Amino acid sequence: MAKYTVNFQPIGRRVEVEAGVTLLDAAQQAGIGLSAVCGGAGVCDTCLVYVREGRVSPPNLVEEADLDADDLAAGLRLACQTEVLGDLRVEVPPGSLSAPQRTQVEGEMLDVAVEPAVTKHVVRLEPATQEDLRSDWSRLCDALAGGVTRPLRASVPVLAALSPRLRAQGWQASVMVRAGADGCEVVRVGAPDDAPLGFAVDIGTTKLAGYLVDLATGRTLAMQGRMNPQIAYGEDVMARIGYAQQSDAHAQTMQRVLVDALNEMIAQLCAEAGAGAEPSHVVDVAAVANTAMHHLFVGLPVQQLGSAPYVAAFSDALNVRAAELGLDVAPGAYVYMPPNIAGFVGADHVSMLLATDIPSSSGVVVGLDIGTNTEVTLNAGGRLLSCSTASGPAFEGAHIRDGMRASDGAIEVFRMIDDRPQYQTIGHAPPVGVCGSGILDMVAELRKAGVLSISGAMRADAHPRVVRLDGHGPAFLVAANGETGHSADIFVTRGDVSEIQLAKSAMRAGVKILLEEAGLTEDDIESFIIAGAFGSYIDVDSAVAIGMFPPLPRDRYKQVGNAAGMGARQCLVSRSERARGEAIARRVRYLELTNDPRFTDRFSQAVLLEPVPWG
Amino acid sequence: MAKYTVNFQPIGRRVEVEAGVTLLDAAQQAGIGLSAVCGGAGVCDTCLVYVREGRVSPPNLVEEADLDADDLAAGLRLACQTEVLGDLRVEVPPGSLSAPQRTQVEGEMLDVAVEPAVTKHVVRLEPATQEDLRSDWSRLCDALAGGVTRPLRASVPVLAALSPRLRAQGWQASVMVRAGADGCEVVRVGAPDDAPLGFAVDIGTTKLAGYLVDLATGRTLAMQGRMNPQIAYGEDVMARIGYAQQSDAHAQTMQRVLVDALNEMIAQLCAEAGAGAEPSHVVDVAAVANTAMHHLFVGLPVQQLGSAPYVAAFSDALNVRAAELGLDVAPGAYVYMPPNIAGFVGADHVSMLLATDIPSSSGVVVGLDIGTNTEVTLNAGGRLLSCSTASGPAFEGAHIRDGMRASDGAIEVFRMIDDRPQYQTIGHAPPVGVCGSGILDMVAELRKAGVLSISGAMRADAHPRVVRLDGHGPAFLVAANGETGHSADIFVTRGDVSEIQLAKSAMRAGVKILLEEAGLTEDDIESFIIAGAFGSYIDVDSAVAIGMFPPLPRDRYKQVGNAAGMGARQCLVSRSERARGEAIARRVRYLELTNDPRFTDRFSQAVLLEPVPWG
Repeated sequence: MAKYTVNFQPIGRRVEVEAGVTLLDAAQQAGIGLSAVCGGAGVCDTCLVYVREGRVSPPNLVEEADLDADDLAAGLRLACQTEVLGDLRVEVPPGSLSAPQRTQVEGEMLDVAVEPAVTKHVVRLEPATQEDLRSDWSRLCDALAGGVTRPLRASVPVLAALSPRLRAQGWQASVMVRAGADGCEVVRVGAPDDAPLGFAVDIGTTKLAGYLVDLATGRTLAMQGRMNPQIAYGEDVMARIGYAQQSDAHAQTMQRVLVDALNEMIAQLCAEAGAGAEPSHVVDVAAVANTAMHHLFVGLPVQQLGSAPYVAAFSDALNVRAAELGLDVAPGAYVYMPPNIAGFVGADHVSMLLATDIPSSSGVVVGLDIGTNTEVTLNAGGRLLSCSTASGPAFEGAHIRDGMRASDGAIEVFRMIDDRPQYQTIGHAPPVGVCGSGILDMVAELRKAGVLSISGAMRADAHPRVVRLDGHGPAFLVAANGETGHSADIFVTRGDVSEIQLAKSAMRAGVKILLEEAGLTEDDIESFIIAGAFGSYIDVDSAVAIGMFPPLPRDRYKQVGNAAGMGARQCLVSRSERARGEAIARRVRYLELTNDPRFTDRFSQAVLLEPVPWG
Repeated sequence: MAKYTVNFQPIGRRVEVEAGVTLLDAAQQAGIGLSAVCGGAGVCDTCLVYVREGRVSPPNLVEEADLDADDLAAGLRLACQTEVLGDLRVEVPPGSLSAPQRTQVEGEMLDVAVEPAVTKHVVRLEPATQEDLRSDWSRLCDALAGGVTRPLRASVPVLAALSPRLRAQGWQASVMVRAGADGCEVVRVGAPDDAPLGFAVDIGTTKLAGYLVDLATGRTLAMQGRMNPQIAYGEDVMARIGYAQQSDAHAQTMQRVLVDALNEMIAQLCAEAGAGAEPSHVVDVAAVANTAMHHLFVGLPVQQLGSAPYVAAFSDALNVRAAELGLDVAPGAYVYMPPNIAGFVGADHVSMLLATDIPSSSGVVVGLDIGTNTEVTLNAGGRLLSCSTASGPAFEGAHIRDGMRASDGAIEVFRMIDDRPQYQTIGHAPPVGVCGSGILDMVAELRKAGVLSISGAMRADAHPRVVRLDGHGPAFLVAANGETGHSADIFVTRGDVSEIQLAKSAMRAGVKILLEEAGLTEDDIESFIIAGAFGSYIDVDSAVAIGMFPPLPRDRYKQVGNAAGMGARQCLVSRSERARGEAIARRVRYLELTNDPRFTDRFSQAVLLEPVPWG
């Protein structure tokens, strides 16, 4: 029987399969965690993929019933219904992937030319003699070839290591030179074969995403996500500002736990990368964060971010010595942070705009970065408008009765099939809770099944699984004690639904007001880009169903994963990208919604659970 | 009776006296500590002054016997023999002043245009509003008027203080801006009426000399000398290098005790200056030191300074954050240090060259900075040659049996009058020991009196005061138990004489070799400038008598006090002076004498106690 090769993108995994097997089988053979709640029965619509190249079976009746003609024309298929009939290139949208594999779409390579701020130069020096008494530093500078602007600078710790190292290494060394707007600086002198490593990090309110990068090639050597340990001092930005302003010691504690976590992350990434990588080889750092996290990380005051008019202490691009922040990397390394746009639209949003290229579009593009704060930018034909809305940590599993983050045992996909709850957990483990994409699916599916009213009320008589829970009122039993991974039931409560309603109304209202400010309607949106470690993996159909996103044709939505982290890596490997990010920040006009009378109005309009077209 | 005004310079003190009183009386009335060992009998020649303007009695027979005709013609007089016959301007050479008053010749004002690196700008800002959401930093930058290069930088501690301070001060502030080669940086934001203070320091191996300066006016507000506490870890440079290279902790300890002493000094200088001066108002620091002290202060390794070929780790001009070195000054302040010329000719010598202006001369000028190392520079018609000789700490009272530093009770002037020892102590207290100028006088006077042979041997039968001291051999009793300030005799031993012989031979040999290198002889020297906290207050005649300096006409000698400290202040108040110092350092050619065969030869030739003319 004929064999064909299926190339799954953007994960970059190939598999050879026999003709006629389904794409779902092929994905499973390739070790790809494609969602399939119904087990391949064609009823859950969670295994959506795009066939980009090659021959497959034509859409069958199931697909024609479930998918729009436009989507089918664009190559969207149910993997469980589509057979392989030739060599294929298949694109797996992030939303169809199981959570642990999603970071794999954040590929090793970036689509920018490698042009890092720090470059490696190998030198071999003549030893000092009675006749040649140049200082060790002068000798090193003289030996450095072209492309390095003079005079060179170096910090004391770099200079302090120089003399013993040159002698220990037989007067050979690698010299890591940082090119800045204000001249060149040697940030490390190492062994001749040390690689120039870089660390990029997205410091989210809830989650940290870190990347170890080879600055010579631009290749990502290792990546890691972990919780922001500051969460112990406040779940959202305002809570942390409140904690920080109680005392300087509080602010310092929050800085320290964050830096400790980053240092641990860097050490683990180096160990994972192997090939002798060490934290001291990290010669450049790019960090992005929202404004409050930015200030807490750097050690700037946040009091003025906590009350109107919510201004940043500092909003320019920042270059600060990593050692000054307590990072255990090369002693002369700097941390670069892109500009903040406003008190609640920070460097992480600039980074997202950089990675998604939204500002270059000439059409109407909306970009959303979903986190505990959701930042929204509208590009209206070249005019950039931004705002921020407090969406809360519901999508990160917080403030949800059985919420949890996206790790093993979290229900990440949920469908009501034949009026019965069906779900898929991360790692296919017994369920222990619900993560962000799961709770969104639940609200959408329970609404569709009539368990929830349009206002979010749960009808006690609508389904046998609705029970009255002490302290919660009516709740829907998702998984009972016997089938869960711990000795408790898993529920969706009325409170959970409310959290989702608040979050989604805030987002929708933000998008709406920016459009109004530009004299546009939702129908004008040509492209709707969803970023953020959590928000970008949710089911767009579920989001549209509950009115979180406008009811646009599916192909106008694009989920891009952790674009802020991607942008951080772009800044790490390219000086031009830093300049481009800074130019973007200058172009953006920020709209403060706090006291905007339109906001309350649009917010309350958006609170209902329905796919309301707003025109 | 007629009254006249006598103006004593460079101390700047005036006194009105009756016609006919002696200049010694006038000086005493003015509170000036003029030396007068013989009590005004005209036999000790210690009260030498120059009459620069006005009418005095003609030289009497005593003066004609004691002073050269050339010197008399130049206005040199014995103060005890010269009567006031009109309004006068009298110059008191440093060597005629008692030690505690010598620092007063280091005047409040410098002879350079005030053009500091850090300038003060007062701003009044519009508060942030909903309509004007610029960050606090952007608002501050926008408010700064001309003369400030953009973009402005600031370190994190400066930025961190900005937001609360602006709000606490009603959006008014003083902004201290540092102009550097790589752009402008805000180093402090303070109250509107805070003065911009600067701290200059000469970090000697033995002594620290610190100056608090108002950067707006260039005025020295307070000055202080104190011992370098590193002396506990080694008396000379090589001993400290040895201690430092035993472990990193040792080097760190020496850095810490030095920085602690400087911080204490800054606090005391601020308290003395009054007018609300505080260490945190110190927005710029200029420091000079020899290369080893420079490296230990900054935290650079000294191992390679301890063995051939004795190279500096770093020899460029240095700008480093004061906070990085542990100095408790304004959080954004920098420390500027001029370049080092070589391993044993440091930034302090560059500073001395700057202050004395030796490099600008078109003639033949020798400049000597006497310390535990004596640095020598020769300007041979524009060509600059330098070397360093290990003169040891004898002039600082160390390695001398009854040696002490120049404080109360130290014998600072010594004469044999009618074969009897006569001396003057600092503060006219009972003697407790001998300081550098005293021991030099003793060697010269004992040689003149025949107590010492030309080779430095002490003849037991030459004087009734020569006794045999256990462990010391023959020794001369300067002051016996009954007359001293403690229960012990004060002696000059053969060992003391040897220390002075070693020190003076090294200096003389260094001068000689530089001259030879330039094809010159000692007779060609047109000006011989002596600097250094100790060496510049010694009696030049005594120094010539024992062969430490060449027998040149007296008016070719110029004693300039702590020129390194003066140069440090010039660097503090003037960016042009920094540039000039850096240019000087580039011009100097350094001669390493360690392995120079000429050195041993000239050294042994110079060891005899005689005013040998070398041609």
